[in-house]
Formats: sequence, C-alpha cells, structure tokens
Amino acid sequence: MTVGDLGEFGVIGRIAGRLPQGAAILLGPGDDAAVVSAPDGRVVVSTDLLIEGRHFRRNWSSGYDIGRKAAAQNLSDIAAMGAEPTAIFVGLGLPADVGTDWLDALTDGFRDECALVGASVAGGDISRADTVMLGVTALGDLGGRAPVTRAGARPGHVVAIAGRLGHAAAGLALLQAGRADSGELVDAHRRPRPLYACGPGAARLGATAMLDVSDGLLQDLGHIADASGAGIELDPAAFPVTPELAEAGRDLGADPLEWILKGGDDHALAATFPSGVRLPDPWLVVGRVTEGQGVHVIGRADTTGGWDHFRDSRG
Amino acid sequence: MTVGDLGEFGVIGRIAGRLPQGAAILLGPGDDAAVVSAPDGRVVVSTDLLIEGRHFRRNWSSGYDIGRKAAAQNLSDIAAMGAEPTAIFVGLGLPADVGTDWLDALTDGFRDECALVGASVAGGDISRADTVMLGVTALGDLGGRAPVTRAGARPGHVVAIAGRLGHAAAGLALLQAGRADSGELVDAHRRPRPLYACGPGAARLGATAMLDVSDGLLQDLGHIADASGAGIELDPAAFPVTPELAEAGRDLGADPLEWILKGGDDHALAATFPSGVRLPDPWLVVGRVTEGQGVHVIGRADTTGGWDHFRDSRG
Repeated sequence: MTVGDLGEFGVIGRIAGRLPQGAAILLGPGDDAAVVSAPDGRVVVSTDLLIEGRHFRRNWSSGYDIGRKAAAQNLSDIAAMGAEPTAIFVGLGLPADVGTDWLDALTDGFRDECALVGASVAGGDISRADTVMLGVTALGDLGGRAPVTRAGARPGHVVAIAGRLGHAAAGLALLQAGRADSGELVDAHRRPRPLYACGPGAARLGATAMLDVSDGLLQDLGHIADASGAGIELDPAAFPVTPELAEAGRDLGADPLEWILKGGDDHALAATFPSGVRLPDPWLVVGRVTEGQGVHVIGRADTTGGWDHFRDSRG
Repeated sequence: MTVGDLGEFGVIGRIAGRLPQGAAILLGPGDDAAVVSAPDGRVVVSTDLLIEGRHFRRNWSSGYDIGRKAAAQNLSDIAAMGAEPTAIFVGLGLPADVGTDWLDALTDGFRDECALVGASVAGGDISRADTVMLGVTALGDLGGRAPVTRAGARPGHVVAIAGRLGHAAAGLALLQAGRADSGELVDAHRRPRPLYACGPGAARLGATAMLDVSDGLLQDLGHIADASGAGIELDPAAFPVTPELAEAGRDLGADPLEWILKGGDDHALAATFPSGVRLPDPWLVVGRVTEGQGVHVIGRADTTGGWDHFRDSRG
C-alpha cells in the first residue's frame, strides 16, 4: 500500500497513531496548532530542511534511519544551546508512491530518537512532493539557565569536544566509493548519535560558547571564533583516530584527520570552557581560545573547510 | 547576482540583515537555535511545507507575494487557536540560480506579513534544492487563555465566519483559465488577508471551536464536526456573493457558491459560539451546530469537498 492509496488524512491519522505524546505536550497533533509547555517562560527553537538526494538517499538509508537522523540533527541544535528538547514538528513532503511501510519506519525513527531525550513529535504537515523532503523544527527548555551562544569564548578558555568526529564523513566516503554498505562508519553516516545530555551538562559546567558540529569542526569552530572575536588553536594530536577511521583511511588513501577536522554529520558538541573547569568524560580538550581570529591547527596550513550548500563543496 | 554567487553564509547574512527582531525574540538568527519569549508558560506551534509547483508558482506570484502568503497561512493557524503570533522560522530550499532580488523580495514578504501581528522571523535554515521549497513554523502566545480547539462545538451553538471565502479559489480559476492576471480575486489568490486579531478576539468572546479555512469550508468544518461529535448545518443564503465573485462566475460558467464552500487559501476563520453571544463585525453567522454528524448545506446534496494533497482532487 502507498501513501497515495491512503490519502492525505489517512496518512495524517496513520502517523499520529504511532506517536505517543509526553507530558510537555498540552495539545498534540490534529488541530491548527499544538500547544507545548514552556515552563521556563522562554522556548528554544531550531529548524532544518532535509531534501532527498541532497541530505539523504533512500537507497543508502532506511526510512527508520532517515527519521532518526532528521530528528537527531534538530535535537542536537537544542542541546547545543544548553537546553532540554521538548518537542519536534515535521513538515513532510512525500511522493504518492512511497510505501506505507516506509512511512511507518520513518515515523518510528522520529519517535525513537525523540524518546532518547523525552521529547515528542507533537505535530506536522503533509504534502505531496516529487521527492521526499522534511522540514523539521525542534523546541527546547532552558530550565532557567542562560542559553550558551557562540559568542562567549575568550582567550585562555579551553576548547573541548563531546562525541564522535569524522565517522559519518568516513562512512559517506566508503558508501560513495562503493567500498562498504555496513559497519561502524557507515552506520555513523546513517544515524548520528549526539550526546544530548552533554549540552545542558556543559551549560551547568559553565561553558562559555557551544555549538553542534554539523558542517565540519574547522568551519563550525570558525563561527565561535567569529562570534566571540577571538582565535582558536587546535592540537591535531588530541583527536583520537579510532581503528575504524585508520582502516578506512588506508582503504581509501585518505588522511583520517581530514574527516575529523572537516567532516560533518556526526553532531558532536564543541564547546569552550574557562581553563580552570574540570571536565568530566566524555569531554575531550582539543585546543584553546587565543587572541586574534580564525581557527588554526598546529602544524597545518589549512585553517578552514566545511560544507557550503550552494557550492556543493568545501570552502 | 544569484544565491549561488553569494554562497550559503552570504545568503544567511543577507536574509538576516533584512529582518528586524521584536522584543519577544531573546536570541535571534545566527546561533544553533533561537530563544523566544513564552510568557504564558506555554507555546502554540504550527508548521507547514510549501513546494513550488504545488503551493505556488513563481510565474504567477512574485517572491514578495510568496513570502506574504507563506507567512500568512502559518500565522493564521496560530490565530485560529486564539493565540497571538510571536515568531516564525523558515527552512528555505533554493535553486542556485535564484536571483538575490527575488530572495530579498521573499524575505521582505515574510517580514511585512509578520509585522502585521508584531511577530518576527527569528531563524531558519538554508539549503540548495531543485525547486523553491519552504518549511515554515510559527509560534504564538495564548496570553493565559485556553486554546480554542476543534472539539468544543455543541448542538445549538452558532457557526460564524471572519474573512473572505472563495476569493482565492476564484482567482486561481481565473489564472488557470488564462482569463486574468490581476484584480481583486487574483490578488486574493496571491496574498491572503487573514483577520488575525479575530482569533484571540473570538477566544475572548467565548468561541467553543475554531479553525482557519485552508482546504475549503465544507471540509474544514467537517473537522470541527468530527472532533466535536456534532453536525453542522449551513445556510447558503448567508454567504455574501461579492460582485467580483459573481462576475468571475459568469465569466467562467461557474457557481460562486462552489468557490465559497469548497475553495481554500483565503484563510478565513470559522468558529462556533454559544447562541447567546453577540458577535461584533466582521463575524458573520452562516449556520448552526446540530445533533448528528457531518456538514450539511440547506437545499444542497453535496456535503463535503476540499483539497486532498495526495489525490490532487476535491474529496
């Protein structure tokens, strides 16, 4: 059976029937709008557009993985402000020949990724489209804390990372080269595993700036450097090259550090902290904030690089 | 100059530079997420996906009109809950050859429609796409009131309308037939004019159910009937047929009442009220809530009809 067979309202009913609503959802799917609790008196909001062929491929990722990933990248943006995600909303464009099994798997992917953080899929919109497209918006609650922006890094602060780097990019490179269709790295491309709790955790530890790494560490740290009016210096020896990354590098004749520094899609958190802060696992110090500007990697000439959607290339 | 020439971050900077941020926006565009005031302790949220060729055509509507319309249909959903809009977020998919003039006009359309209600475009996302697509999310504040859902209509309540009906559908029919490319009705298709203040106003007047008419009055009132477990009876003589609608009907050999009852995109508000409520202008009583189910038009056999996105047809 396809979504075209179900019709618009059949699709809406089918999706809504698979989505439990948490306590923060005061009015869930089915009306003109939902009502979500915002006990803090403020709400954190992030939105992303994901387009088939550009952000995902249905022959490389299952519907379930696409739902997990689409939810993850938005929930991660909320965590990167130091907030707890409460709800996501999904605008869903679907070709009429998409199977209901695929739709169910996508829905379950959204549901399960949200469940990791206690959030709910509280509403959305359905439209027919030529390819699958997803407009995802996530909401979160700061619990009385100040948001951790990109602008608070100061010379002397340390730069630390929580989560994997380079795995998703290496997995994508293996898929593109036809060298693997499963395994740790390919899985990392299909489904990021952001360490959501580290976001509010970093805020409580006194993080001075934070973001989630989605376009490559160098490029994304460049945003912190720019917004903070400071420079950042990274120590390349500080980044662990896992056996999987090393093997993929040998296999493809690539330098794993390139994936680590320039690869997107792992949604690690990168943050700066005052130098005296004792950082618990999994935070890993990889550099420091300096006077000046831009991001510099000790011993390397390249200081930038990341994804530009309009140039389909690394800057 | 095109958006491809500007590059992703150039586009983001250009858009953000045109968007003033109101007092409710505690942290605006430029970080992982925005922070919006939610003084009520709750936030109302609605999202929509708009796709070129399906929801709008660039040769029929200017960038400015598309921005106005995309904002309007989301802000109207917020008003239809009885809430005041505070912010919208726009996920924007653009072909690289879109001109920066068109992008500026789109941005200004979003800005100006939001300005009507004191809301701000507080964030978004940019991606390259094969056609223009918009994922729009609107937020609103209930000001301590209960949301007006679709479920509170009871037999004996009156059904009332605020705003135009059938104008946008007639305008689209004129465009499709090549009979007009300007005028009142075509303008209504290009740019709806929801009566936003009537939403919170209806809540204060004691509205028992409300929605914004986007898929056709019969179909949308059917949602109130279903959710409320009641029937609705409409008096066709209660609907004003404006001279423009009458002329378009003669021109196209169509019954204007069909546009009024089944046309979408005007974003009028439809609400039910206890029968004793004295309704001020522009509310117009057009029917009543009955025992039973479904929507019935006195003297007519058809009781349904509206847009189904997967069937590209009227139900």
